[in-house]
Formats: sequence, structure tokens, C-alpha cells
Amino acid sequence: MDLKPMFYPESVAVFGSAGERKLANVLINRLLDGGMERVYAINPKGESVRSAKGYTSLNDLPAQDGPAGLAVIAAPAKTVNGILEDCGKTGVKAAVIISSGFSETGNIKGEHELTQTARRYGIRFIGPNCAGMICTHAKLVATLETAPPTGGISLISQSGAMGGSFMALSADDGMGIAKFASYGNGGDLTVLELLRYLKEDPETLVVALYLETVPNGREFMRAVEEVVGVKPVVIVKSGRTDTGQRAALSHTGSMAGADAVCDAALRQCGAIRVDTLHDLFDACKGFATLPPVKGKRLSVITNSGGPGVMTVDRAETIGLLIQETSEAVKASLGAFLPSYAGTRNPIDLTVEGTGEQYEKATETSLAECDAAIALYVGTPYLKAMPVARGLADAAKKSGKPVAAVMQVGADIADSLTYLREEGIPCYESGERAASVLAVMAAYESRRANRSENCLESATPIGDVFGGKKNSLLEPEAMKLLGENGIPVPKFAFAEDEKSAAQAAGDIGYPVVVKVVSPRIIHKSDCGGVALDLKNEDEVRAAFERMKKINGGEGFKGVVIYPMLKMGKEAIIGLSRDPSFGPLVAFGMGGVYTEVLRDITFRVAPVSKKEALEMIGEIKMFPLLRGVRGDAAIDIDSLSETIAAFSRLPLLYPDIAEADLNPVFLYEKGVLAADVRILG
Amino acid sequence: MDLKPMFYPESVAVFGSAGERKLANVLINRLLDGGMERVYAINPKGESVRSAKGYTSLNDLPAQDGPAGLAVIAAPAKTVNGILEDCGKTGVKAAVIISSGFSETGNIKGEHELTQTARRYGIRFIGPNCAGMICTHAKLVATLETAPPTGGISLISQSGAMGGSFMALSADDGMGIAKFASYGNGGDLTVLELLRYLKEDPETLVVALYLETVPNGREFMRAVEEVVGVKPVVIVKSGRTDTGQRAALSHTGSMAGADAVCDAALRQCGAIRVDTLHDLFDACKGFATLPPVKGKRLSVITNSGGPGVMTVDRAETIGLLIQETSEAVKASLGAFLPSYAGTRNPIDLTVEGTGEQYEKATETSLAECDAAIALYVGTPYLKAMPVARGLADAAKKSGKPVAAVMQVGADIADSLTYLREEGIPCYESGERAASVLAVMAAYESRRANRSENCLESATPIGDVFGGKKNSLLEPEAMKLLGENGIPVPKFAFAEDEKSAAQAAGDIGYPVVVKVVSPRIIHKSDCGGVALDLKNEDEVRAAFERMKKINGGEGFKGVVIYPMLKMGKEAIIGLSRDPSFGPLVAFGMGGVYTEVLRDITFRVAPVSKKEALEMIGEIKMFPLLRGVRGDAAIDIDSLSETIAAFSRLPLLYPDIAEADLNPVFLYEKGVLAADVRILG
Repeated sequence: MDLKPMFYPESVAVFGSAGERKLANVLINRLLDGGMERVYAINPKGESVRSAKGYTSLNDLPAQDGPAGLAVIAAPAKTVNGILEDCGKTGVKAAVIISSGFSETGNIKGEHELTQTARRYGIRFIGPNCAGMICTHAKLVATLETAPPTGGISLISQSGAMGGSFMALSADDGMGIAKFASYGNGGDLTVLELLRYLKEDPETLVVALYLETVPNGREFMRAVEEVVGVKPVVIVKSGRTDTGQRAALSHTGSMAGADAVCDAALRQCGAIRVDTLHDLFDACKGFATLPPVKGKRLSVITNSGGPGVMTVDRAETIGLLIQETSEAVKASLGAFLPSYAGTRNPIDLTVEGTGEQYEKATETSLAECDAAIALYVGTPYLKAMPVARGLADAAKKSGKPVAAVMQVGADIADSLTYLREEGIPCYESGERAASVLAVMAAYESRRANRSENCLESATPIGDVFGGKKNSLLEPEAMKLLGENGIPVPKFAFAEDEKSAAQAAGDIGYPVVVKVVSPRIIHKSDCGGVALDLKNEDEVRAAFERMKKINGGEGFKGVVIYPMLKMGKEAIIGLSRDPSFGPLVAFGMGGVYTEVLRDITFRVAPVSKKEALEMIGEIKMFPLLRGVRGDAAIDIDSLSETIAAFSRLPLLYPDIAEADLNPVFLYEKGVLAADVRILG
Repeated sequence: MDLKPMFYPESVAVFGSAGERKLANVLINRLLDGGMERVYAINPKGESVRSAKGYTSLNDLPAQDGPAGLAVIAAPAKTVNGILEDCGKTGVKAAVIISSGFSETGNIKGEHELTQTARRYGIRFIGPNCAGMICTHAKLVATLETAPPTGGISLISQSGAMGGSFMALSADDGMGIAKFASYGNGGDLTVLELLRYLKEDPETLVVALYLETVPNGREFMRAVEEVVGVKPVVIVKSGRTDTGQRAALSHTGSMAGADAVCDAALRQCGAIRVDTLHDLFDACKGFATLPPVKGKRLSVITNSGGPGVMTVDRAETIGLLIQETSEAVKASLGAFLPSYAGTRNPIDLTVEGTGEQYEKATETSLAECDAAIALYVGTPYLKAMPVARGLADAAKKSGKPVAAVMQVGADIADSLTYLREEGIPCYESGERAASVLAVMAAYESRRANRSENCLESATPIGDVFGGKKNSLLEPEAMKLLGENGIPVPKFAFAEDEKSAAQAAGDIGYPVVVKVVSPRIIHKSDCGGVALDLKNEDEVRAAFERMKKINGGEGFKGVVIYPMLKMGKEAIIGLSRDPSFGPLVAFGMGGVYTEVLRDITFRVAPVSKKEALEMIGEIKMFPLLRGVRGDAAIDIDSLSETIAAFSRLPLLYPDIAEADLNPVFLYEKGVLAADVRILG
């Protein structure tokens, strides 16, 4: 998709009253201050602002200038559609609609008009009700938010204010931005198209997202996955709690999905979810600056014990490895460090640590580590600059990622600037640096191990219910399972006593007989399940009893199974999310699910590999692998069953909900012991 | 304890070479820059530094000055004891020993000498191997670390560097410090005495601690609890992970307890544990500034949706309540807010929000909330100052805690200064502000609800083992339990077949018979347990079988119980921690403990109330309270049993380890079904 007119315009026309302190006036000033040379002020009075000449209409622009490259619209809502029309007629191909008063206030019609007009003329726009955009490389600052320095991070934000805060962090820190777009109501361009554009953008090294809602979940997952193959996507998705969701809902007017679903979906497509805006900035800074983190082994170099301990505590808690230094590397370190220095990892240079020692210790330890964090805690009389130089040199020589923490001291400010210029990111604390390296390592690991798409495709076979009913009888459901690769026990459906007896004989005693009736949901509660029947008489008697349940109303017959050997019990469930569509859930049954909520899920369908990941994720996994001398269950077969079951709602799009509860898990094989499928 | 000579000296003598860039030289400069007027430089050359006159010995000080108030010692290790002697002889009562080269390098004898000398002369000292100390109210800056502004936070730090970083945070933020002490090796004053001193110190509003090791756990808990009754204690305890502990160990030379024990102990005595130095600073800032947070109901006022959502997400995740605004308050808000403002909580004033609206909205919402967070996200053209004024006024009028977040904007720096002066703490983000208010609410709640000491006292009764053996036979152990208020089943010990048969008759059939032998640990594995014996013959036969186990070696007899009704099973355990002493653990048995590690513990003994808290803490608690129509178990009786069992190691100090595994839990009552007690 070509968004060049949007991000790289040669000129910008700003619409709206241009008087002192008016929105358009401020926007023109921001554009001029940012370095955009050709800015036009289009307003009813034809007022100019500084070098931006005023006109009353786009038509009045000097012919030799050609059409304006980008329209920035801050005029009243009711005038915006007319302005878009004018843009279309004069050949403007891109617009940023800052004006509010559209779908967010209930004016859906007005927003629809904008979209129609834009389509007619081939205009692409962001907004309405947005905070604007930035393209630092094109000197384009079409927003009221802080103008950041130029760099490699691009941000797409659903909230203008969060975007503004991110830009302010960038300006404070010096770590620069490539592009920023606040898409507001998303009347035309949404996060999907902006994501795909940033994927191709060579100036963007990492994509940051702030989202409150994900309206088109499956498409979003596919878009993220495409980008993630090329560059990392780091996301803050707010609205985690019920109140958070209510708040997100009330200020954006769109539906927020349940957070746990969203969390699973984001992981599934390879997005890196972080908690706060600072975490987002920290992670992006790492990705935009450092070489890939190719493993989890971290080395920590410090001149002070306390911060070293804090750093390794955090690093290990989040899954990085702090291995004790090998004897060989200890010997190398010993060659240039005093005897009282610590060499085990963290490497503690003590307060006497010099720039040269930082350099050599970092380089030496990186021989057996994938990344390093160097901590420097100065006092008013220590010098930071030699340490900064040492670290930059060590990073260059090793070619591996080195992050720094410079705390306190006489020349910290200079050394921070120096390190930034040398491509060493500096963080507030060792803990924060460790968090960044951990997500970077996770990104590389996923990229290296991923061969399949996050959502397999599945061609629909057809309807299950034919629009006529909304649940399957048990034998119908078992049949459907069997046809779709889900292991079910032998079973037979019998409509009369005689065929029940015959079927039981065919299956082999002892058998289980269960009533079949669309009216009965809890079969055991009303005597609708007879276990361990040992002969024909018992089967006939059971049939007769079941026929009379509820006065025989709705009775269709019975289903007969062999008496199954008990196994460990699991639940596999299917449901639908309004944004992400079909979901598949897996957990152990009973108290594990009800009390511990020990359940995991994915957007369906999942591959066998993904199903294996799900199985490994539940807290009770050790029980499946075998504890206390228990044998392991057949995890291979279970994963195939989860994968096959997860395809059902894609193959049969009228399945709304289903569960296998329980699935018996054996040392060899698994069996769906009960099933429920609803439309 | 009087540490006035330490913290409020009228003069300071600094020992050590005073040449340019030498430690003592820097220290003297820090003291003079900090405002200390009478500083003496004591060094072999009698060198002066600026206005600090040089002497070669303490004896040479002008007689009319009297003895020096505080000695700050930065001389070589081998000279320190002599300096202390001189201090003693001339009447100096307090010393800060910065010099290193003592127990941290293995020189335990040298450190012991210092302690002996100090005791002899009644000198109190901090260090050796420490980063010094600060008392802002006395203009005392006896450290190389950054000098902070004056305020109400006092910090005791085991690490000099962490202390220095905390001082630097204070200097950056403007939130001031009362006292700072880095106690290094703790040769004399340790965290215990410093804590008790700060409890009485009127200038200290909140105590911050940074610890890597807690050497005397039970004493520490008592000291913390004393302080917590008067003012909050916030702590960073590092060494959470194994590597963190190893690192803490290597740089301080003392033993770090297992983190989970430490975590439980800190909660038990009322300390507030936080994760990072920034969290520590944030929390202390809240405590030092705000009125008490008397409940969990939080109101969030914002001019921008995104940060509001982020704030309520965090607030609810950590247990604060974000209730929807009542209709009455909505009506009050509606009287001065435009229709498009959000009034549900968060209250969203939108980007048009004025200072007056911030003031009124904050005050109005506080009518039904316990605390408020006001978020202001500016743009380069919004003004922050009116908002700051509005918030300060609202805080004054309501008398309730208001925290602020001021992000981006033209006059942020001024408004931050203004808010600080007005006693409104400002935080980096709404999430961080919410975290602070949550710990403040927890502190108030504990203070309001706590009536008992964290560690009950228990007078030892005597030895169990009499030094002769190290485990009790099962009937001995059951007897001890019974004598100490722990419910046990009827039981009888029988040494021959006949008395076994008779005892079984007395108890009533069916019975259980278990072998009694000090040699047999896993009784069931070798046929040492016979269940459900229905008559005398079966009991006699069982006795005969058991007599022959292991060729009869070690056979003492059998113990006979009634056949117990099965109940839910729990484990209660006792063990000893090197620092915290006896611990009591509680959990459900089997996979819950082994796979889920669903276990909780406390430093023993615990009260019944504390035991109830333990029961409520385990993840499987709903199972005890009754799920799926199951009846609840007798939680009252269980809590009494935990409390009684937890007193055993205090009553019988030679008990090292014990467990009740399982305890059967019934609807009415509980019963210890097996027991093991080791010396």
C-alpha cells in the first residue's frame, strides 16, 4: 500500500481558523518549526501564519505549486466533508482529520460520509478525532504533540495522549522516532493498514502499538504476524480489567474483548505485550539500537554489589540465565582484575573499577554470554565517561548486545549522550535493562523456531445444523468427532430395546447406556446414565427406565458405549469471541478448572505444535508428564486431538460452542468420553 | 537508645590522608559543602582542607573546643583501632568507619577489635566498610554519596551504592531525606538499633530499608513491628533468586535466607516489601507527603482516556476499588462539566479540562472515595499550572490523599515544583501512583486491624528427646500432640499380641494397626500398615506379621487406631530457618503441594487469627470452603490445630522438624492421621 503522499508530502495545507491560539494556527506553527517548508493556511478569512500563506480555498493555491501534498484538517466537523471534496477535486491524495464530532459522539453518518467521499476521490486519511501524525525523516510534524528527534521507532496509537507521552519520552531520552500516527476513530486507515505500511518502511526498525480495542482480531493477528517476520512489534493493550474495559469503551465507543483472549491472541501472532508506556519505550529502544539477542545467557558487570544483585534477581525471575562464569573466563578476568573483584557473574569491579576494566570484563564475559548489562553507580567524585567509552568499545569488539545503566555521578549527562550516539541503550535500572533483553531474546527465539502461520487456514465443509436446530444429539456429535479425527469410543445408537440389547452384545459387556434426548442436559442427575451393565437383561431394563424419564417426552433412544477404563480427565472446549472468532481452550477437569482456573487457550485453529505448547502451559502439566511414579499420559495423541477439535468451528461455521468433557487420557491414546456441540 | 552524638554532632573530625583526591579530603569537602561548620582534619601531616584545620592527633584539638562530636574514619584498616582508642581517650562518643579491609575480606579479628575498643569507651559506630551517613537536619553529610534536600524519609541501607542512588533520586525529585545510614559490615550498630532509633526520631516520617541479608530474623521482625506501629517501614530485600543470593553472599560475606521465608516474615511483621529502588522511593514519597489512605476506593480524574484506562487497569489488578460514580455525584459533576465529559470513574475532563474543573471534580469525587489520582497530559499549548493549583486546593479542602501525574507540556517543571511545595506527590505514571496508594491503604488497614504481636511468646517446657535420640516413635509423638491441644484419634500402643487384641477391642472394630519401630520410616512400603481389621484374629495376625518385618530388628510393638473416616487431606509442617528460626507451613496434600507448590508459611508460632490467614491464602482454599455442593470443612478447628502445632518448637526447643501428614479435615473437627517429629 502506498502511503507516501501521507508520510512524505512536499507541501501541507492546513484547514481551520488560523487566529492566535486556534488549533490550525498551532498546527501551522508546529509544521513550520518542524522544518516543513511549504505550508498553506486555508481558512475563511484567508489568514496567513508566519511563512504559511493564507488562502480561502484550495483552488486559489498558485498553479505552479501543483496540488497540496497533504491536507491537515482542524475545521469544524460539519465543514470537513466539503473540505475533503475540495481536496479530491484539486488532486490532494492524503488527509489527516484532527477534527472531532464524528462516530465518537454518535455521528456515525457524518463519519460514513467522509469515508465515501475519500473513496470516490482515492484519498486516504487518518482520523477523524485523532492527534495527528509525524514523519521525522520528512520533517513532517502534523500534530500538537511534542516533536521527537529522528530515529527508528514508529508508533501507532489509538490514544492521542499516549502517543504524545511517548513522543515526550523520546524527546527527553534522545532516542528517536521514525513515524507516529494517531488514528483516532479509524474512519479510513486503521491499525491494520498502518501496520502493513510500517512493515515495508525501511526507516522503521521496530513498531510500537498502543491499543485499547482490537476490532478485527483475526485480521489483526495476521497483520502482526506479517510484520513480526520482518521487525518486532511491541504493544501496550490497555483495558485489562473490567473497569479498564469500561473506561476504554466509554472513551472510544468500540467494543473491548476480554483481556485473557487478547493476551493469548497477541502471544500467538508474535506480538510482544508489555504493561506500561515506559516498558514500551524501553523495549523499542533496545530493538532499535541493539544487535539481536540470540540466547538467554546474560552477563552482568557492575562496580557495586547491590544493583548487581537487583539485576540478577530480576533477570532470573523473567527467564534469563545467569550462569556462573566458567573457570577459563575467570582466569582471563583474573589477569586484569584485582583479587578482591568478584568474577562469578555478576562481575563486581568494585568502586575502583576503571573504564578499561569495564571494557575488558564486558568483552571477556561476552565470550560465553549472549548479552551484557553494565551497571555503573558513580559517586560525586567518580568519572563516568571512561566507563562509557569502555562499554562502547566492548560492544563494538564483541558484536553482541550491551545495555548500560549509569546512575549518579559527576558526568552522567555527557556519558549518556555519548552512549546514545554509540548505539548503547541506557536504562533507569538494571532490572529494566534485563526486562528489555528478555523480550528481545524471546523475539529472536520465536523468529528462529517459527515455521507455520499462527492461524492455519481451513476450508469450510458446510453446516452442521442446517439452520434447523441448535444442538446435536450425543450420537450425532460423536459421529462428527469420529469423522474429524477425534478419537471416540465404540458406540451405537439404539431406538428400541431390542436393538439396544443387540448393540450392547456387539460392543461387548460391560457397557454404559446413556439416554438420548434433546430435552435432557444433565443426564446423570435424572438417571439417564447407567454404568457397568453386565448383560442383556440389565441393558433392556436400563432402556425401559430411560424411556420413562420426563414421561418419555423428547426420548429418542439410547447410546451405548463400552465401559471405559478411567483415565486422567481433561477438558477441551470451543467458544467464539466477538473480535477473535473461534477459540480453543484446554485444561484438566474438576477443581483444577473450577478452583484454580488452570486453563489455557488460543485463537482456533491450532496446529499440533501449538497444541503441545498449550498442554505444556497449564500448571498441572507435571501431572500429565507423570509425578510420584505415575506414568506419563499420551501427550502426542492429546495434542493431535486438541488440534483436530480446534478445526471444527472453521470446518463447520455454524458451530458456536462445543466441549469434550471429559476426555480420558491414557498412557496410550486418549478418548472423548462425553461431548456437547451447540450452534 | 541515644544516637544523638552520631546524628547531631557539633563538630566532626575526619581521619585519613587529606591530600587532593584522597578519600578524607573529599569527605571534608562534602561536610563543609553540606554546611557543617566545625570540621577537623586529622592526618599524619596535619594537613588542612579549606576551613577544616589540620592536626596530627585528636589530642591537639584546641582545648576550648571540647572533644570532637563525631569521628569520620577513612584511614587504612590497620590504623583504625588506634584511632578509635584515641577517640575513646579524648571523649569522642560516635564514629563512622568508612575504611574497608575488615570482615568483608576475612579480617574478622580486626573487626572484633574495633567492637571491643568501642565497647570499652562507650563509643557507638557505624561501619566499617560503609558509605557513611547523612542527617540533613543537622547539616551532616558524612558520605561520598549525593547530598539530598531536607525532608521526612530516612534510609538504612546495607549497600552504599543503593543508598547513593536513593540520595540521587531524592536530589533529582526534590523529595527530601531526614537521615541516611549505610551500616556496611555492622560491626557495632546494625539495622536493628538504627530501626529503633528512627522509630523515636521525630524528623523521620517513613523508614526505607535496603537489605541483602537479615542475619537475626526474629529480632528483626520484632524491631520492624515496633516501628510499624508508629510509622511505615518500606523495604527492598534483594537476593530473591538463587543467583541473587549467591551474589549478595559474595559481596557481603553473610548468609542470605531463602527468599520465600523472608517474604513471609516481612509480611508477618508489617513491613511493606517492594521490588525496586524506584518503588521504594515512590512509596516513601507517598508516606512522607500524604494523609493516611483510609480505604481502597480510588477516584481517577484525567483529561485523556488512555492514561485513565492504564491507571484503572493497574489499580484494580493490585486490589484497589474503582467503583462507578454514584448517581448523586454524577449529578454534582454534571453541574459544572460539559456533556461530553466522562463521569463514571475515571472522570474524563477531556482535553478541554480546566484547572477549576480538576479542582471541583477531584473534590466532588473524593466525597465517596478514599484517595484520588489526577492525570494531566498536556500538549505544548496546554497550561499545567492552573491544574496544579486546582489539585492543591482540592487536596486541602477534602483533607484526603491526592496524587498527581503531570505528563508533557509547556510549564510542567514549574507545576511539579509547586505541587511538591503543596504536599502533592507527583509520579511518573498513573500506574505508579496507584501502586503507592495501594501499599498506603494496606498499611492503614493493617494498623487498624492489628491487635496482637507478630510472634507470640511461648515459654519453653523442656526437651522432648533428652539429648538421647532424634526422633519420636509414633505413639510418643501422638501423645505429645494430644497433650498440646492437637486433635488426634484414639490410639493405643501394644507390645505384645495379647494387649494388641485387647486394645483393639477397647477402641472398637474396625481398626488400623501400624508397626512401631525406629528403623522403619516408610511403614506402608514394607507391610507395616494394616487397614480395616474387623476382629481379634485379624489383629493378632497383623501383629505377628509386623513382628517379623526386617527380621524383627528394632520392633517395639504396634499402634492401634480406629479406622478413620476419610476426609480432605492437608499437611501441616514445621522446620527451622537459620535466620528466622521455627517456621510453620500449611498446604493441601499430594499433587497440590508437589506439583502446584500450593503451600503457605509463617515464622512460628502463629495465633489462630494468623492461621486463618494462612488457610485463606492457599490457592485451593475454595475447596476447603466447599465447591460443587461439597460441604465446607471445619476451618475453625483447622486454624486452632495449626496454631497449636506451631507452638511446639517453642515449647520444646529440641524439636527441629515435624509434620502432620495427612491431617484429615471433616465438616466437624480435624484429626492428625499421621505424625513425624524429629530432633
